[in-house]
Amino acid sequence: MTRAFNFSAGPAALPEPVLERARDEMLEWGAERASVMEISHRSKSFIALAETAEADVRELMGISADYAVLFLQGGATQHFAQVPLNLASAGQAADYLVTGAWGQKAVSEAAPYVNARVAASTEAGSFTDVPANGSWAVDPAAAYLHYTPNETIHGVEFHQIPDSAEVPLVADFSSTILSRPIDVSRFGVIYAGAQKNIGPSGLVLVIVRRDLLARAGQPKAKVLSYAAQAKEGSMLNTPPTLSWYLAGLVFQWLKAEGGLAAIGERNRIKAETLYAAIDGSGGFYRSPVAPAARSWMNVPFTLKDEALDAAFLKESEAAGLLALKGHRAVGGMRASLYNAMPLTGVQALVDFMADFAGRRG
Amino acid sequence: MTRAFNFSAGPAALPEPVLERARDEMLEWGAERASVMEISHRSKSFIALAETAEADVRELMGISADYAVLFLQGGATQHFAQVPLNLASAGQAADYLVTGAWGQKAVSEAAPYVNARVAASTEAGSFTDVPANGSWAVDPAAAYLHYTPNETIHGVEFHQIPDSAEVPLVADFSSTILSRPIDVSRFGVIYAGAQKNIGPSGLVLVIVRRDLLARAGQPKAKVLSYAAQAKEGSMLNTPPTLSWYLAGLVFQWLKAEGGLAAIGERNRIKAETLYAAIDGSGGFYRSPVAPAARSWMNVPFTLKDEALDAAFLKESEAAGLLALKGHRAVGGMRASLYNAMPLTGVQALVDFMADFAGRRG
Repeated sequence: MTRAFNFSAGPAALPEPVLERARDEMLEWGAERASVMEISHRSKSFIALAETAEADVRELMGISADYAVLFLQGGATQHFAQVPLNLASAGQAADYLVTGAWGQKAVSEAAPYVNARVAASTEAGSFTDVPANGSWAVDPAAAYLHYTPNETIHGVEFHQIPDSAEVPLVADFSSTILSRPIDVSRFGVIYAGAQKNIGPSGLVLVIVRRDLLARAGQPKAKVLSYAAQAKEGSMLNTPPTLSWYLAGLVFQWLKAEGGLAAIGERNRIKAETLYAAIDGSGGFYRSPVAPAARSWMNVPFTLKDEALDAAFLKESEAAGLLALKGHRAVGGMRASLYNAMPLTGVQALVDFMADFAGRRG
Repeated sequence: MTRAFNFSAGPAALPEPVLERARDEMLEWGAERASVMEISHRSKSFIALAETAEADVRELMGISADYAVLFLQGGATQHFAQVPLNLASAGQAADYLVTGAWGQKAVSEAAPYVNARVAASTEAGSFTDVPANGSWAVDPAAAYLHYTPNETIHGVEFHQIPDSAEVPLVADFSSTILSRPIDVSRFGVIYAGAQKNIGPSGLVLVIVRRDLLARAGQPKAKVLSYAAQAKEGSMLNTPPTLSWYLAGLVFQWLKAEGGLAAIGERNRIKAETLYAAIDGSGGFYRSPVAPAARSWMNVPFTLKDEALDAAFLKESEAAGLLALKGHRAVGGMRASLYNAMPLTGVQALVDFMADFAGRRG
């Protein structure tokens, strides 16, 4: 085994015990004499798996019965469109807080369906901060206020839930879901692509307050309706069963690790360890993000001389530290510290960074 | 190992060598030091995987450069909606041949977007046949003619490509794709959910003639646009990478098995073996489907006395023959004989059927 510490922004590292179990059960799952991906989603055993996964994520996140939990497809990107299709009438106003590339994409994918208005944007500051609560005005007639709790590319995270006044708060939690406890009752809709903290890409978790399911939204195929999918237990059509199974294993691993309070504490320490190494490097490494808005999950940083980037990447990869190249929109490096990244991985990274700076500084 | 012969209609059996390879590579894929589901879809190695899978399916099916091949999400059900969204203007007419439950669903999911007209239906005959070529009239102003080459529930298959006159032919090939050679050049769009002959559920293969990508269709999010996805190599958003990988392994297995000519011959023999057992049972078993329209992939059959159904299911399962219960819309039994089902599995089924009829007849 030569598995390395994988800092990929997504699809991202999964917990090794989850992969080991999936491997061991690949040809025969339970008493099925078949792989979990080879059986009907309407079989008793798969439905039990699906219900257990839902119960586990409800327990982990503290999701009350006031919310439906859906296991859907299309990535967060498709739900940029499905949110207005389900929550807004055609051309109705909806307000957006834009703090990075994903918030921008949420606006552009929603635009065919809704009057998507930017209530606040940090683009003028190159997306290195979040706007202060109270710095935006939400139209009481807006269908919802949408924001991106964590921007994967820019490494900017809201550490407090923004104020949405009277309108439902909708959040693309893709890159920070399950990273710590949150108060779900503050939200109208939470959605998240699976490929960071849940499982493989191709699965989307959607948590919708049930009163919002009564909204007519806009004319659409039934398969795109949250209400119709909620009514059918996310099985209006064949769900991505293998991904659902893997997500269920991840939820069980999270519970075994102590739940979101314990995971959150670990993530806080991981992030502090890396930011301390950056800030303590005497300027060799630099974080572009305002300290109060620094993400626990995605840590972009630059080297003092970008001519050293290629050497940093080559040597870090040789040292078993993978996928540290930053997104082209930001440059430099990016270390993603999702739940599956252990503190030992972060320690290995900061040790390498110190060694590299010592040799090249 | 106690893997059984799995006759599930979908999600369905996959080739055992594919599952074994996925198992062996679950924690480390190639030289990646990570699972294939843990690496970026934009990494060189994943892009090479994606390109190889596309090249393999192009070779297997004889897909020319005039067609784009897309690896998307949402199941065939979502593409019931995406087809009119991409190919028709709002409210334009589109013609449908309806030969079973899936054709009906295609019409109802398209209805919010297009004037979906039933050009021909076999519902009056309980979906036990296909309409004869020439028995329908296609409006030259229709956006397309849609049909379902194989109806998974009713076990009815078109063994010839229907005439679509001047308009593009669109086909939901979910349950018969890759089961034999077809002339792709006769089609405007071919789409197929993966969970029968391609891989796990959650992946959809869409083959679109490139001139149709120039159609404006209807206002929609970019993620729902075939043209936008074709331009981005199906990576406008994160694709379902694990499913794409598994599909690629299935394509390699098909090539190793001799390609679609060899697979088609094997499928023909499998189907003939089972239908011969049904027809030769002296009325103990019965196929409801007109002989010329009998599916090679899904074989529904009834027992002469439905009071024997429970015993048949219990004993067949004990004999290692799984998931033979028929769909409630048709009743009785259904054996799905997708590519991964070997002839030995069909032989085991017909042996069991003869034994059961001998004891209970």
